[in-house]
Amino acid sequence: MSQGKTALVITAHPGDFVWRAGGAIALHARKGYRVKIACLSYGERGESQWAWKTAGVKLEDVKAQRKAEAEEAARILGAEIEFFDAGDYPLRGTEAILDRLIDIYREEKPAFVLTHSLNDPYNVDHPEATRLAQEARIIAQAAGHKPDPTRAYAAPPVFLFEPHQPEQCDFKPNVILNIDDVWEVKRKAFEVLAAQKHLWEYYTRVALNRGVQGGRNSGRAMTYGEAYQRLFPMILEELA
Amino acid sequence: MSQGKTALVITAHPGDFVWRAGGAIALHARKGYRVKIACLSYGERGESQWAWKTAGVKLEDVKAQRKAEAEEAARILGAEIEFFDAGDYPLRGTEAILDRLIDIYREEKPAFVLTHSLNDPYNVDHPEATRLAQEARIIAQAAGHKPDPTRAYAAPPVFLFEPHQPEQCDFKPNVILNIDDVWEVKRKAFEVLAAQKHLWEYYTRVALNRGVQGGRNSGRAMTYGEAYQRLFPMILEELA
Amino acid sequence: MSQGKTALVITAHPGDFVWRAGGAIALHARKGYRVKIACLSYGERGESQWAWKTAGVKLEDVKAQRKAEAEEAARILGAEIEFFDAGDYPLRGTEAILDRLIDIYREEKPAFVLTHSLNDPYNVDHPEATRLAQEARIIAQAAGHKPDPTRAYAAPPVFLFEPHQPEQCDFKPNVILNIDDVWEVKRKAFEVLAAQKHLWEYYTRVALNRGVQGGRNSGRAMTYGEAYQRLFPMILEELA
Amino acid sequence: MSQGKTALVITAHPGDFVWRAGGAIALHARKGYRVKIACLSYGERGESQWAWKTAGVKLEDVKAQRKAEAEEAARILGAEIEFFDAGDYPLRGTEAILDRLIDIYREEKPAFVLTHSLNDPYNVDHPEATRLAQEARIIAQAAGHKPDPTRAYAAPPVFLFEPHQPEQCDFKPNVILNIDDVWEVKRKAFEVLAAQKHLWEYYTRVALNRGVQGGRNSGRAMTYGEAYQRLFPMILEELA
Amino acid sequence: MSQGKTALVITAHPGDFVWRAGGAIALHARKGYRVKIACLSYGERGESQWAWKTAGVKLEDVKAQRKAEAEEAARILGAEIEFFDAGDYPLRGTEAILDRLIDIYREEKPAFVLTHSLNDPYNVDHPEATRLAQEARIIAQAAGHKPDPTRAYAAPPVFLFEPHQPEQCDFKPNVILNIDDVWEVKRKAFEVLAAQKHLWEYYTRVALNRGVQGGRNSGRAMTYGEAYQRLFPMILEELA
Amino acid sequence: MSQGKTALVITAHPGDFVWRAGGAIALHARKGYRVKIACLSYGERGESQWAWKTAGVKLEDVKAQRKAEAEEAARILGAEIEFFDAGDYPLRGTEAILDRLIDIYREEKPAFVLTHSLNDPYNVDHPEATRLAQEARIIAQAAGHKPDPTRAYAAPPVFLFEPHQPEQCDFKPNVILNIDDVWEVKRKAFEVLAAQKHLWEYYTRVALNRGVQGGRNSGRAMTYGEAYQRLFPMILEELA
Repeated sequence: MSQGKTALVITAHPGDFVWRAGGAIALHARKGYRVKIACLSYGERGESQWAWKTAGVKLEDVKAQRKAEAEEAARILGAEIEFFDAGDYPLRGTEAILDRLIDIYREEKPAFVLTHSLNDPYNVDHPEATRLAQEARIIAQAAGHKPDPTRAYAAPPVFLFEPHQPEQCDFKPNVILNIDDVWEVKRKAFEVLAAQKHLWEYYTRVALNRGVQGGRNSGRAMTYGEAYQRLFPMILEELA
Repeated sequence: MSQGKTALVITAHPGDFVWRAGGAIALHARKGYRVKIACLSYGERGESQWAWKTAGVKLEDVKAQRKAEAEEAARILGAEIEFFDAGDYPLRGTEAILDRLIDIYREEKPAFVLTHSLNDPYNVDHPEATRLAQEARIIAQAAGHKPDPTRAYAAPPVFLFEPHQPEQCDFKPNVILNIDDVWEVKRKAFEVLAAQKHLWEYYTRVALNRGVQGGRNSGRAMTYGEAYQRLFPMILEELA
Repeated sequence: MSQGKTALVITAHPGDFVWRAGGAIALHARKGYRVKIACLSYGERGESQWAWKTAGVKLEDVKAQRKAEAEEAARILGAEIEFFDAGDYPLRGTEAILDRLIDIYREEKPAFVLTHSLNDPYNVDHPEATRLAQEARIIAQAAGHKPDPTRAYAAPPVFLFEPHQPEQCDFKPNVILNIDDVWEVKRKAFEVLAAQKHLWEYYTRVALNRGVQGGRNSGRAMTYGEAYQRLFPMILEELA
Repeated sequence: MSQGKTALVITAHPGDFVWRAGGAIALHARKGYRVKIACLSYGERGESQWAWKTAGVKLEDVKAQRKAEAEEAARILGAEIEFFDAGDYPLRGTEAILDRLIDIYREEKPAFVLTHSLNDPYNVDHPEATRLAQEARIIAQAAGHKPDPTRAYAAPPVFLFEPHQPEQCDFKPNVILNIDDVWEVKRKAFEVLAAQKHLWEYYTRVALNRGVQGGRNSGRAMTYGEAYQRLFPMILEELA
Repeated sequence: MSQGKTALVITAHPGDFVWRAGGAIALHARKGYRVKIACLSYGERGESQWAWKTAGVKLEDVKAQRKAEAEEAARILGAEIEFFDAGDYPLRGTEAILDRLIDIYREEKPAFVLTHSLNDPYNVDHPEATRLAQEARIIAQAAGHKPDPTRAYAAPPVFLFEPHQPEQCDFKPNVILNIDDVWEVKRKAFEVLAAQKHLWEYYTRVALNRGVQGGRNSGRAMTYGEAYQRLFPMILEELA
Repeated sequence: MSQGKTALVITAHPGDFVWRAGGAIALHARKGYRVKIACLSYGERGESQWAWKTAGVKLEDVKAQRKAEAEEAARILGAEIEFFDAGDYPLRGTEAILDRLIDIYREEKPAFVLTHSLNDPYNVDHPEATRLAQEARIIAQAAGHKPDPTRAYAAPPVFLFEPHQPEQCDFKPNVILNIDDVWEVKRKAFEVLAAQKHLWEYYTRVALNRGVQGGRNSGRAMTYGEAYQRLFPMILEELA
């Protein structure tokens, strides 16, 4: 049933798709989805603090190192990854980036999209990634943008992934994804991010606590969860 | 699959379950659910304006008339109905009402619950019904309330149905239910409420416009919709 | 044009109608409205701190003193006043109080109602007064409450008056009433509340600052304002 | 009394002023207002889906067709229209567009302004139009922008018109305009938008349902309504 | 400096003061505060699921067991505890409970108060405890409640403790308390709650993750944190 | 203890730091802080209405006059001031401005930052200043921005100062600073702004009313206050 389905992840930095959406990526990859990650920057300036502790390190070297990590993490999770090299801190969307994202929406016709929370007062790049994800999703619907009368396209549902400090970002999860089946894969992807070892345990605890909450909300046991905030109404044929 | 499943509707007045949830009731009944309506009042004082236009009409007569209508509408929709006769305008929950609702949650183990919006500045009975529905759902989980170690119970998801003026009630739908298959049944139930003929067209328009919105949000054609606001996170095994 | 129009003020304590709505009361009285104040308590326990500084003072004496003040302030402002003696700190609405308020709505058919803000974390009586005002307004519409087929009644618009610390009460004014023409009357009513002299200047400053804001929002000079938050949509025949 | 008054409508696309504000435009035109529409784009790429179903259609042809429609609709409604040709999907405000809007505010000294909702997660152009409308309104007050000591100007009230899915856009109407007197005109303007026939009925239903709500909120019968959200406090001399 | 200071904790059930405020209690006790816990119920029906797994268990036995646990946990944390035996699921505040709480506020003159979040859709008792805590704090200020002209009293600041699912309860922490110095004490108190062993790890993870967030927000290393939402403005003499 | 501490004020226009933060500036200067004001524009076009009443006045002259005023006000308050000449109405942040602000954060390592509210529907420059303040604070943390492995930097707390119409700007103060000790200095700084004499009294009233609120919230007498909204959680070692 997931034959030919695609999932799209639009992320500001490499770490984000691992910590925040690694479970969803691995889970859907295992179910047979193609999962495509649009990685807008390498997080080279603001998410690579350790790399800059060496005097004289070069930007290009930091980028190359983060790129390699991101590719390895994507491989472990079972996803494809496309880099945009948009720069970080601040990440600024350009018309070219937007244009490529629009094309991706149309090419992939994703079954759903994962991206950042709408607000993040700790991080200027996260809401910019979300803005780009939302604008591209909308513009992809415009028949007059690169017109092609044969094209069919419908805007997919959007799920926001959990930010580092959810309450400060006005993040209110309405979905908890059970990632028990792929937890080991997600955890393995953590280990690619060797310099952020302190976050391995942090996000393991987040997954365990979301798992407990998932159990409470469903009455069905589960261990590891990923929280999401779904935008846009769901259209259902049955409520349970 | 819906063999043995139950849906529970907790409604302040008879009209509400017809206008606001008639599609969900008919649809799930058709799918094989037992649908149980807990009808807290007959709406005898505040939702029966026409009946009181005759001088000297008696409260008991109005109640009997509304009861008959509610039973007929439930029958058309395919649901069972239990009356609480709690009074309306104002409906005031008592411990006895709460107690009976707790029992119903435990007896029925509903797959989901439908009730009113959290706020309604136009109607004092609607949020009171919601309060009762929420409290009973919570207390039903308390092992020490009428203890029985053999009992299994998990609190079901709750969907709020659309109030008359949604924005004024801070109602934000995140679910649109496709009710095309049962529209004719819902419409037929409208016609039981003969004295509120002006609302037949109002709620037909609501259903048509929610249908258009459902089509926009899903990319799949549909004609008639019912909007709901789901409380509590969904626990999912797949996002699409 | 205001011939025969009534305004209704539902207030928890005597001070409130002076500080918060004295301008509106005096202004509409001058325009020919009957203004009726429903004064739910005498504020005898929680709004009469000075009176209790004398050892041995009796509750009835404090109530009598506050009643006299409230009558005098109402007289100065040009309003009628009806006391409910509901008690304060805490004020608890009873079915009898609610019933009398419903009757007042129906007798007076007020052109508008003034009451407290929806929330007030500093004062438990204020939101209780608002709850009573809202419930009575709604129940007054129920044809089956004390039925009378000849009765005509439509629920009036509601304006919330400004609490002591507006932002903490989630009070967002959308109306500023120009009270320049009656400022001296309002100020004179302040002086009846001799024991709260420090508040005379406080609420004079509030009026002056709302006046400046009124000027900024309208482009028309004004000096003294009273801020209100209107609930329920306005129905207009022209937007300017 | 409306002699010499102007109303200003700032709209992202041609359809918007018809569906969302056609009643207000026709009503105020009939009352003697000059109504000026600032139409920021032709909606050529994102609001002209049908036009692009023909292979090889040219952008300029689509724009010309939409321009003709917009002019015809404005004519029917009784308004003037000025086009900005800012492009759509995405509409991006430039300093030149902003500058022209500032001039219009100053030239027209509108009695009120109509524009889009503050948020619209379905449409990137709508909030951009609102941003431009708000910024131009503010900057028009700056004496040092194109200084002229003889100029008088006060910022007008702003009304946001109803978006397609109001709750998803955090749109909370606080004004319902009675458009009964001009309904036939608004409906006639619908018919200019021949390719969007399905929306004729959608927005007729919206008008009828807002009409019912208008009747409920005012106690006065009305049939057709347009909902608006007024920003900025109203300055009043009387509350009823 | 904390000589003679008191802290007051108003809690619905015994577990709550351990999981949610155990660190604050132990920390202030160690600093020399008297810490007083007002424990409104024993959590006998709704927070003692394990106890009811034995057929025939008696309510009084469950209460006695929970009381013993609560006393032991309070002892470990260094606090006094007073029981109200108000019942749980649902906990309903009575005038007698309110009255006793008012007396406690006046007797203890607490430097601060800890209680539950304002909302909790999973638990009907938590917001009821908060309501009682807020009302008692307010009424304690009323000079006419049990008048005594010699009494001095000022309402203390209120901190809400973290609920089980913070985002669903609209809980937004603005304070993180560093509890490193007393973590072992808090953890020891966990172990009194032997039947809820699964929660020991859950709330250890919560403490660790709030600790990481505390470090991020302050730039100073810390390991264990407790999150609070402070109500009411702080009055400061210096901002850093 | 405040030896070597710095406070940073990021302000859109000269008037803002006087009316909104003059007390905090003078108070911390007196306590020994270096206080640095980053004044993004001279307010030459939009906050200098009087200057433009003379025909033929030149922009450069208005800027020079406002600069002199700002320097004099800063001198009176005890602060240093750096001008950015970014232009006003609209103020548009450039990468150069952002870059200089980042450097200031790193050079000054401020103990706290004061800036505008997050929203201001009356003023397009205020939220733009806040955006710049927030982005610079975040980017200053990025090790790869002008890397220097020896640098230590932690993002400081941010306090938003009170806008002209707080409720319309969604400003909710959670801090009131007691400025009694420096009130005369703040008032003296008002007098530098000779052309805005009407605002002297307005902001004196604001200070007095915030002072009354400060007294109410703390139970300690104070006369003059400045309200702030603190962003980001506080990390505390003690709650009282």
